[in-house]
Amino acid sequence: MPIAAQDQLSTTFAALADPTRRAILARLATGEATVNEIAEPFEVSLQAVSKHLKVLERAGLITRGRTAQWRPCRLTAEPLEDVADWVARYRAFWEAGFDRLDRRLQEIQKGQTGEDDER
Amino acid sequence: MPIAAQDQLSTTFAALADPTRRAILARLATGEATVNEIAEPFEVSLQAVSKHLKVLERAGLITRGRTAQWRPCRLTAEPLEDVADWVARYRAFWEAGFDRLDRRLQEIQKGQTGEDDER
Repeated sequence: MPIAAQDQLSTTFAALADPTRRAILARLATGEATVNEIAEPFEVSLQAVSKHLKVLERAGLITRGRTAQWRPCRLTAEPLEDVADWVARYRAFWEAGFDRLDRRLQEIQKGQTGEDDER
Repeated sequence: MPIAAQDQLSTTFAALADPTRRAILARLATGEATVNEIAEPFEVSLQAVSKHLKVLERAGLITRGRTAQWRPCRLTAEPLEDVADWVARYRAFWEAGFDRLDRRLQEIQKGQTGEDDER
């Protein structure tokens, strides 16, 4: 199994597995922001927000400016594109209820002879 | 913040944050399978696979048959559709390098007067 190659995706999914971090990304989708600006709408400490930002930064979901006193955070979309690419493989399963279709097919294959040629 | 309503999505992302669990889903995308069949290609114990299946089942990503001795696992696509819907909001950011465009716009707004009307 090519586990190592997929670690970036695991890191991305883990970073997204938190509603506050997803809300931070939604905020940054409207434009770059400082830690203080990001923290404003949340009922958590600035320290907690900083921790969330570090997780997002490690996952490559945000980048931070280099100016020491004003380090704006900015959304980086590439890891989200990888998520979209990954999940797109399963599109057929939810479009047209393919999982239900699959179940029906398996039932037929298991001997519930489907000899009547319905359309 | 409507945190509670988003917990299902957090559970889904957490379940997907593991390469073995994603590989199990890829296997199930080809058709339902028993725990033994699923475990075959992996270099982990049957017990470890069972644990992964429990995580996937709790996240609603798989369902298991009711027959006691042969409980086939089956992919359930709905949570993946939620992931696709969520990530689609950011499509504009990776299509056409929107994040880079945004950065450029911000730079211009910050007074690096862009008065020359380039095309």
